Amino acid sequence: MPHQPLGLWIIGVKGGVATTVLTGLAALGRGAIPSTGLVTELDPFTRLDLVPCGDIVVGGHDIRPGRLGEEARRMWVESRAIDPELIAASEPFFAVVEKRIRPGTVVAAGDAIRTLAEPTIAAAVETPRAAVARIRSDIEAFARAENVRHVVVVNLASTEPPAAGAIPVAFGDVEPLLDDPDACPLPASSLYALAAIEAGASYVNFTPSTGATPPAMQSLAEDHGTAHAGCDGKTGETLLKSVLAPMFAARHLEVMSWVGHNIFGNMDGKVLDDPRNKAAKVRSKDHLLAEILGYPPQTHVSIEYIRSLGDWKTAWDHVHFRGFLGTPMTFQFVWQGCDSILAAPLVIDLVRLVDRARRAGERGAIGWLGCFFKSPLGVTEQDFSKQFTALEAWARAHAER
Amino acid sequence: MPHQPLGLWIIGVKGGVATTVLTGLAALGRGAIPSTGLVTELDPFTRLDLVPCGDIVVGGHDIRPGRLGEEARRMWVESRAIDPELIAASEPFFAVVEKRIRPGTVVAAGDAIRTLAEPTIAAAVETPRAAVARIRSDIEAFARAENVRHVVVVNLASTEPPAAGAIPVAFGDVEPLLDDPDACPLPASSLYALAAIEAGASYVNFTPSTGATPPAMQSLAEDHGTAHAGCDGKTGETLLKSVLAPMFAARHLEVMSWVGHNIFGNMDGKVLDDPRNKAAKVRSKDHLLAEILGYPPQTHVSIEYIRSLGDWKTAWDHVHFRGFLGTPMTFQFVWQGCDSILAAPLVIDLVRLVDRARRAGERGAIGWLGCFFKSPLGVTEQDFSKQFTALEAWARAHAER
Amino acid sequence: MPHQPLGLWIIGVKGGVATTVLTGLAALGRGAIPSTGLVTELDPFTRLDLVPCGDIVVGGHDIRPGRLGEEARRMWVESRAIDPELIAASEPFFAVVEKRIRPGTVVAAGDAIRTLAEPTIAAAVETPRAAVARIRSDIEAFARAENVRHVVVVNLASTEPPAAGAIPVAFGDVEPLLDDPDACPLPASSLYALAAIEAGASYVNFTPSTGATPPAMQSLAEDHGTAHAGCDGKTGETLLKSVLAPMFAARHLEVMSWVGHNIFGNMDGKVLDDPRNKAAKVRSKDHLLAEILGYPPQTHVSIEYIRSLGDWKTAWDHVHFRGFLGTPMTFQFVWQGCDSILAAPLVIDLVRLVDRARRAGERGAIGWLGCFFKSPLGVTEQDFSKQFTALEAWARAHAER
Amino acid sequence: MPHQPLGLWIIGVKGGVATTVLTGLAALGRGAIPSTGLVTELDPFTRLDLVPCGDIVVGGHDIRPGRLGEEARRMWVESRAIDPELIAASEPFFAVVEKRIRPGTVVAAGDAIRTLAEPTIAAAVETPRAAVARIRSDIEAFARAENVRHVVVVNLASTEPPAAGAIPVAFGDVEPLLDDPDACPLPASSLYALAAIEAGASYVNFTPSTGATPPAMQSLAEDHGTAHAGCDGKTGETLLKSVLAPMFAARHLEVMSWVGHNIFGNMDGKVLDDPRNKAAKVRSKDHLLAEILGYPPQTHVSIEYIRSLGDWKTAWDHVHFRGFLGTPMTFQFVWQGCDSILAAPLVIDLVRLVDRARRAGERGAIGWLGCFFKSPLGVTEQDFSKQFTALEAWARAHAER
Repeated sequence: MPHQPLGLWIIGVKGGVATTVLTGLAALGRGAIPSTGLVTELDPFTRLDLVPCGDIVVGGHDIRPGRLGEEARRMWVESRAIDPELIAASEPFFAVVEKRIRPGTVVAAGDAIRTLAEPTIAAAVETPRAAVARIRSDIEAFARAENVRHVVVVNLASTEPPAAGAIPVAFGDVEPLLDDPDACPLPASSLYALAAIEAGASYVNFTPSTGATPPAMQSLAEDHGTAHAGCDGKTGETLLKSVLAPMFAARHLEVMSWVGHNIFGNMDGKVLDDPRNKAAKVRSKDHLLAEILGYPPQTHVSIEYIRSLGDWKTAWDHVHFRGFLGTPMTFQFVWQGCDSILAAPLVIDLVRLVDRARRAGERGAIGWLGCFFKSPLGVTEQDFSKQFTALEAWARAHAER
Repeated sequence: MPHQPLGLWIIGVKGGVATTVLTGLAALGRGAIPSTGLVTELDPFTRLDLVPCGDIVVGGHDIRPGRLGEEARRMWVESRAIDPELIAASEPFFAVVEKRIRPGTVVAAGDAIRTLAEPTIAAAVETPRAAVARIRSDIEAFARAENVRHVVVVNLASTEPPAAGAIPVAFGDVEPLLDDPDACPLPASSLYALAAIEAGASYVNFTPSTGATPPAMQSLAEDHGTAHAGCDGKTGETLLKSVLAPMFAARHLEVMSWVGHNIFGNMDGKVLDDPRNKAAKVRSKDHLLAEILGYPPQTHVSIEYIRSLGDWKTAWDHVHFRGFLGTPMTFQFVWQGCDSILAAPLVIDLVRLVDRARRAGERGAIGWLGCFFKSPLGVTEQDFSKQFTALEAWARAHAER
Repeated sequence: MPHQPLGLWIIGVKGGVATTVLTGLAALGRGAIPSTGLVTELDPFTRLDLVPCGDIVVGGHDIRPGRLGEEARRMWVESRAIDPELIAASEPFFAVVEKRIRPGTVVAAGDAIRTLAEPTIAAAVETPRAAVARIRSDIEAFARAENVRHVVVVNLASTEPPAAGAIPVAFGDVEPLLDDPDACPLPASSLYALAAIEAGASYVNFTPSTGATPPAMQSLAEDHGTAHAGCDGKTGETLLKSVLAPMFAARHLEVMSWVGHNIFGNMDGKVLDDPRNKAAKVRSKDHLLAEILGYPPQTHVSIEYIRSLGDWKTAWDHVHFRGFLGTPMTFQFVWQGCDSILAAPLVIDLVRLVDRARRAGERGAIGWLGCFFKSPLGVTEQDFSKQFTALEAWARAHAER
Repeated sequence: MPHQPLGLWIIGVKGGVATTVLTGLAALGRGAIPSTGLVTELDPFTRLDLVPCGDIVVGGHDIRPGRLGEEARRMWVESRAIDPELIAASEPFFAVVEKRIRPGTVVAAGDAIRTLAEPTIAAAVETPRAAVARIRSDIEAFARAENVRHVVVVNLASTEPPAAGAIPVAFGDVEPLLDDPDACPLPASSLYALAAIEAGASYVNFTPSTGATPPAMQSLAEDHGTAHAGCDGKTGETLLKSVLAPMFAARHLEVMSWVGHNIFGNMDGKVLDDPRNKAAKVRSKDHLLAEILGYPPQTHVSIEYIRSLGDWKTAWDHVHFRGFLGTPMTFQFVWQGCDSILAAPLVIDLVRLVDRARRAGERGAIGWLGCFFKSPLGVTEQDFSKQFTALEAWARAHAER
């Protein structure tokens, strides 16, 4: 592997997941924590010559006011989720990253997100085209300044509403619309993705926002030879659905209904309290059941913002199924996971693996990363075990002895 | 496939699982129920030319007093687990099977089981060798009388205590001990298995009892060309462990402790209330976690007999795990499954698949049936998804287009 | 007690709760079941000279098509909630009641309920005044025909939407509006209550619908000397809130949030699937927490219609609370109750107790029946234990030795 | 109230509950925390002229090695249960108390506890009489040195096994046996209680150990005019039983079985891992159900030591009950409480209330403190709500306007 660091550019760098990524990179860099939670620290991934966690240089965009470490401290004070000593020891790392933060854009980001923005950012008027150019230039300046060999852009910003209108299938039909904020069909997340593609960076969409998902964006990514992956990190309730639903299918047990009720209280939850933003998330959490089972059970997914829970995403799932002789039975689970703690190592994994895939010559949507996502691009498999088998197979094929 | 029926000989034919098997076979035979719960009615297994469920003729041994249909009615009255109309419609089927029931043996079955036995059976004195000869002769007489092309013997009897002493590795060293009840190291379940092997039948051990598990028995089975499978049907809590533990491993989440608390109230539960019988069951439910995770978390499995629950096996599992940055998190599930309803279709699946394997020339322990068992013979894999993939692979290789 | 039977007139007599009441009265009348679930069969209530369950004669209104026993059979087939033998044995009882059923009214009942109505009932055009007169005349005809000494009218109909506009405080201002369906502020449930009051019957509102709750109706009831009670039977999740919240208060534990998620699949659930009808229910389930705790925690109540659950109302409640030194802790419960089975005996209890209260000279809203209701009239206490103590105190004061 | 401080002498002063009491008293003394969790800070208790928390001077006995603050830091490091800043700020308070700690006794404490003891303490040989004299003298020296107006002795030591033999009913028959360790029927906890009584102190037994429970001890306490209270603080699962069981009784729902499964990992749990010590605890947690319900349901209580849980006592309770028409239903709860956090404020409450009761002239077992205990002395009521009503009634009768 070349002896230059890798650049990681985070959209939403001040958020909870991003701050946890930073705390983790700082702690891993100084050897202060074990590798728990990092898939890439398991065999065979350790034999892939991945970039060391200490060789990742971070910058990013954000629209929020406030200093970088604030969200990390909130992870302790409100959620008791990160040891305060770890946070204190990461302060120098935060200070360095803080200097690399550039203002994001609220163009086409929706009202819920706009209200979170720093006043000067919320007030900025620019065309989508100008926003893309500005974002691209920020990424390129970062790459130059830090002398990184490559940049991976990761979207960790709060979920935006689903795109309002249809996005033309050919990018050639989208491009001319970039000058008019009212006509442009691309939401903010896709403008960031566009800037990343144009800057020659890889791109990972860890959120359910549109990003590089539309066909127009995917073909553009292929034309530019961009490796990318998404969408929507599979960290908790949906991970469990993708693990458990195959069991019901394999045992020929008929799932009559599957209800999932999610409660949590972090910034993400606040944004999802807007029904438009929530719609994108619920859709992303729900579709896989019918895909795995082969028939559509009655499903219900709810997500509620409960302030006191902070980063603790608690999910109650109730599965009502029918067995032999028509007898109805019940399975319930309660997942009490810390959202950012579960997401952050997967972000680091994805950065390392997308970089490695690119070095191996992969371009376009990387389907064998499907196990990381609720709505994987480039692959239809939703069964977690099969997704993980595919990931391992790629790794074994590229691993050193 | 030859045009003769297949014989199914059940050890413990009056029990809850057996009665549910009979109710199911009766209902399937007259087309009264859908195939829910039967793995073998899923593709690709439907293309394997398996014996039709209506072509299975049943007989068996039991030590208990009482008529065959009683346990089925108890499944309705005490557990509301089987529709009383289904039971009523199965009475003619029960009546036919009832005539084929022969008295089992309590030789080496342990105290808890002996107290359940009909007085004349409990009082019978015979050497292990005589018991084997009698059982074998019952099976052979059944095969002749019903003109079946082959017999599959399935052990569904209540769990016996773990074998007290060591069983010699070579069957030649076991054989001479069969004359002396006090010296014979084989428990009752192995005497039945021995009789099945000698009768040329296939053998399935759906319980954690010893059966054909000891090396001496396994090599004997190979010498006789017997196809067999076991042990201990994986129907509920352990099934979930084998589905969920791989997820924790794949995500590099450290399982610190896994507690499983099981409560139920059927006859099986009553037998397990004897600590010696329970020991065998707990061992069978517990070992797979360390095997899947690669390290031993603190585990605890308890099984309690709670009369009011009848056949409803309720399990609460509490998984305490550590993620990134050392943050502890929790996953809990509650499984409310009807034990016999979950087990019965798997028994039918195993009978059909073991028969098919034998027709395909397989002999000895059939490892690709591992997904059906808590402690599979002939294979070490404990990850349910990988076990099921192996089952599908065999089926695809032998399926018709 | 006079030697005439008591009349019970049920609004919504074909529904699940009503059918369970009928099945229960039939079974109690022939001594086929123990008194489990009936509060009035506990001491000291057994010493109150209450009407025997076998001396209650039933009739009622409904708007739905279909025969009376259908919902009872659905309680078995869809929910396995009532033993089919009990239902079969109740058929003669159903047949007698069936002849006494009269068509209800859909005036001011809302769209969700109108779509359930039998076509001829849905199409009927009548003014509110005419509806009241017709209902009253039905009740009076029933009383005469069955020669009952008194009638208790109980509202068990599906929840209607909250009243749209304000209802004048004086009944004199309401009365003139009864001729104009568009101007009349009373919803259907209040028209039934009005008819009951005018007919000299007692009135129990077991639903969250408006009924006799408005001040105009309450003062009318007092003027007519009508004993009445309501609203909204406290059968499951809310009962638990009223039992558990006082514990948190007494231990000075700060409830930060209380989330309740309810799923079920009976007709009631279908009606609640209309957001307007659901609003009334959620309000009724939620307000008591702040009243008991003395401060408003963040609360969330959701109710979802999950068809497969039938009459099984499953509730998951998650309570997040803070203890000494500010440490956050969690309490969760899962209630798997059969809605009609829980409600029906309370309906019988209320009929017996309201009749007894009237015989003791009580008029207006009977506050000491508060333990039966989510939103009790005539009393502010919401702590279940204190409500029950009040009920016992009244009973002790009126009980025979 | 006299202007001298109150002395609090803790048996087991280095344990988790004691350390949390100390952290709390330190924080309350400097106004650093709100009064959450303290019953005595609710009205009407605030009008009782109770000793201010800042006027309580602490000392105590312990047998363990290690410094006082260690267990507090473990509450943070292992359990994330106490904010590390609170602990750091309490260090000066700990240092003062540390100097007042005297070695406890292992005479008659059982093997599990003896293995925890500091070697010099474990090796000490003394007769029961000598131990009592030494303990009494320590308490009296503390009272003199700190110039306190009265001492309340609280037993917070780990649970000892149930007393092996019968304890004579008259103290006069016990007294002569104090010279012979082998003949003396009093366990260690009763020796401490005896010393407290002889020293003129009040006594609170917050554990299920024997303490002042035997009739011989109770009559001795009355003879000495000692106010005392116990046994076994009601902090979690049992508290909920005493809140929920009355609801089932009041609704005439038949509890068929009640299973409680408790897991936790603190020192207390380690001691309870010894089956002899566990027996005392299980007995204390189980008996109240039959007392409240009026009939004995099948019950099961298990307590397991799961190291990773630290101080987080997690309880799963499964209640299987029967309602109207014989329909079985289910209620389950999961309690995730921090044991020491729940217990500590109740200890402070008891110290304040016992002191106040004594000032009001109360002697012997104080029954109106029953709501604090699993096995209350001096009262038979087990319904929490009624117990709390009794507590409030006493307070109202003694409160200032």
